[in-house]
Order: sequence, then C-alpha cells, then structure tokens
Amino acid sequence: MDYYSSQINRLVSELSSLPGIGSKSAQRLAFHILNMPKEDVERLSAAIIEARTKVQYCRECFTLTDDELCPICRNDRRDHRTIMVVENSRDQAAYEKTGKYEGVYHVLHGAISPMLGIGPADIRLKELLQRLQKDVDEVIIATNSSLEGETTAMYISKLIKPTGIKVTRIASGVPVGGDLEYIDEVTLLRALEGRREL
Amino acid sequence: MDYYSSQINRLVSELSSLPGIGSKSAQRLAFHILNMPKEDVERLSAAIIEARTKVQYCRECFTLTDDELCPICRNDRRDHRTIMVVENSRDQAAYEKTGKYEGVYHVLHGAISPMLGIGPADIRLKELLQRLQKDVDEVIIATNSSLEGETTAMYISKLIKPTGIKVTRIASGVPVGGDLEYIDEVTLLRALEGRREL
Repeated sequence: MDYYSSQINRLVSELSSLPGIGSKSAQRLAFHILNMPKEDVERLSAAIIEARTKVQYCRECFTLTDDELCPICRNDRRDHRTIMVVENSRDQAAYEKTGKYEGVYHVLHGAISPMLGIGPADIRLKELLQRLQKDVDEVIIATNSSLEGETTAMYISKLIKPTGIKVTRIASGVPVGGDLEYIDEVTLLRALEGRREL
Repeated sequence: MDYYSSQINRLVSELSSLPGIGSKSAQRLAFHILNMPKEDVERLSAAIIEARTKVQYCRECFTLTDDELCPICRNDRRDHRTIMVVENSRDQAAYEKTGKYEGVYHVLHGAISPMLGIGPADIRLKELLQRLQKDVDEVIIATNSSLEGETTAMYISKLIKPTGIKVTRIASGVPVGGDLEYIDEVTLLRALEGRREL
C-alpha cells in the first residue's frame, strides 16, 4: 500500500480498522475527507475525540451519557419502579423511539456468552441487583432474541425470582408486517408457542 | 434523535454525513468508537485532521501527496515523456498497483459533466496543457469508461491533437475473467468494435 502518500495511507489504515469499513470504503472515505472543507474536517475530528472523552456511564442505569445521571434516570415523570434490561444503549434507543415505554432502563453492556468467554461478571449484572434493593415492581428483560440474549435472560430471571420481584421477558414472534414465508422456523415455532387467545 | 446523549448525537451526525454511511452504520461506528481504547481514538482523530492539513497537490501531476513533488514525479527512473491522464488519485493508485506502468501521471480531479455543471475549467486541464510545453511523446487518456469519462477523453484528445503529440485511449471491453453472460450490452459492443487480429 505505497500507492498513496504516507498521510493518506495512515488515514486509510485508521479508517479501515473500523467495523464494516473495508479497504475500498476506507479509501473512498479518506479521499472524501481530503476534499471536505477544513472546518468540516475539524468538526468531525473533534466530535470523535470529544465523544470518547466526555461520554460516561450513567451511575444509575449505565447507559452512555454526557452527565453523571442520564436524562431518563433524571426524569421524575418516568416510572422508576419498572426497569427494562437491555444489552446496550442502541437497544435502549430502539425502545425509546417507540415513545411508549414509561419506565427506566438498565444497560448490561453485553450478554453472557460462554463461546466468547463473557460471563455474568463481565456485564453490569451486579449493578442491576443493587438497584433492586430499592422499590422495584417489575424487571422487563429485553435482551436480544439470540442464543446469548436468551441465556442472559434465563440467568437474570433465576437471579431475580427469589427476591419476589416480577420478572418478564419481551415476546418473540413474527415481526409486524412480516411474511410467514420468509420467516425462519425457530421464529415460527416461537410465535406458535407464544400464541394468545383472541 | 434525542435518544442518545448530545455528544453521541453529534458524533452520529458527523459520521452519517460521510458518503456511504447511513444513520444505522453511523450509530454502530459511534458506539464502536466509544468503546475503543482512548489512544486509538486519538490516533484516528489525528489521522483525519492531519491528512486534511498536510496533504497537498503535487505541483507537477496534481496528485495528492505529502510533499511539493510526489514520489512518482520525483523518480528519475520513470518515463517523464509519457503522461497518463486519470480522473483522480484512486484511479492512479489502481494503475500503480499493476506495477507495469513506467510513465508519469496527470490527475484531473474530476471529469467534464454538463449534467453536474463541471466544465473544462473546473478540472486540471490547463495544467495538463502547460506540461505539454516540455518534451512529451504520448498522452494516454485513462479517464473512466463512463459518459463523463468519455466526454473528457474526447475533449482532451481534440485539444492535444493539433500539437502533434500522440494521444491514446485505454481499451474498453470485457474484463479479464468476466463471463459474457453477465456483461452489459454496451461493453459487449465496445469489445466487438475493439477486436484485434490474432
């Protein structure tokens, strides 16, 4: 890779270390950056470094936030007795976008995965149990519907059940608008198991 | 987009302004950056700003380079009497990777496009003509095989022909290893027109 100047090579190699960016995309991005107005490049560079420096974990729910306490945990109108457990801040954002969930969250930052060597101590589980010392009515487990997500959901429900707090799991099934023909068998069976009377 | 902290939103919006990066990829990248070691983030941010600040145009061929004169124009073993005209530095790099081209380049930084309002004065054509004042044996036009590339090739050849300098155009046709079945008709016709005796 000595076809470009060393500065360009350096930028291409930094960009291609990002997930989902191969060497072709990295080259395209690099040349785009070289042609951007200088102020825009400065803004991009600053946004990267400042996000990494200034963003921290909320001390209550452990989502990524600018302050000690995130806007949701700070909000008195949210129901602080209902905690939805999610794997990461993106999953939290997905539920926030629905605009219908009134409770608060707990962000695990991962899921239990024996394959990847991620155990219960590697995610924010201890912190979740600490939160349950306060008055909590329900813990809604909204980890992904993957092997890791299900393992984590099972593990958490076993931990919490002895405390007497209600533990629920979000439903899995056919996505709204989904065409049965294109849905995998596991999901179809899950949808059948989870059927409700009309 | 108020589901994330303002720093995260700012980073997501900067990233999604880059070409080929939609809002989902920008979110994934942003969270990846937030989880990267701080030194790596500093390196990425610095590479971006420094590439933009330090990279300049070669005063001879106008490719993007670290110095006043690019390594190819500085190289005495290259044939400085053969100039390959390309649209941008990426196309130049593509030919350099072949390792077989011995001449030098001229980078236009664009192609003539009446659709986009890019005229002959908007690309580095005047600079090419200036270079032809020196001893030049051949100008190889290697602009893309697109409408804009062909228009530009035609325009350049008309400009240069009166000077008596040899002007050539790289061949278009079926890519090596290409299966005829999957090649578009225009390329197939071009390949037929360009057929050579064996």
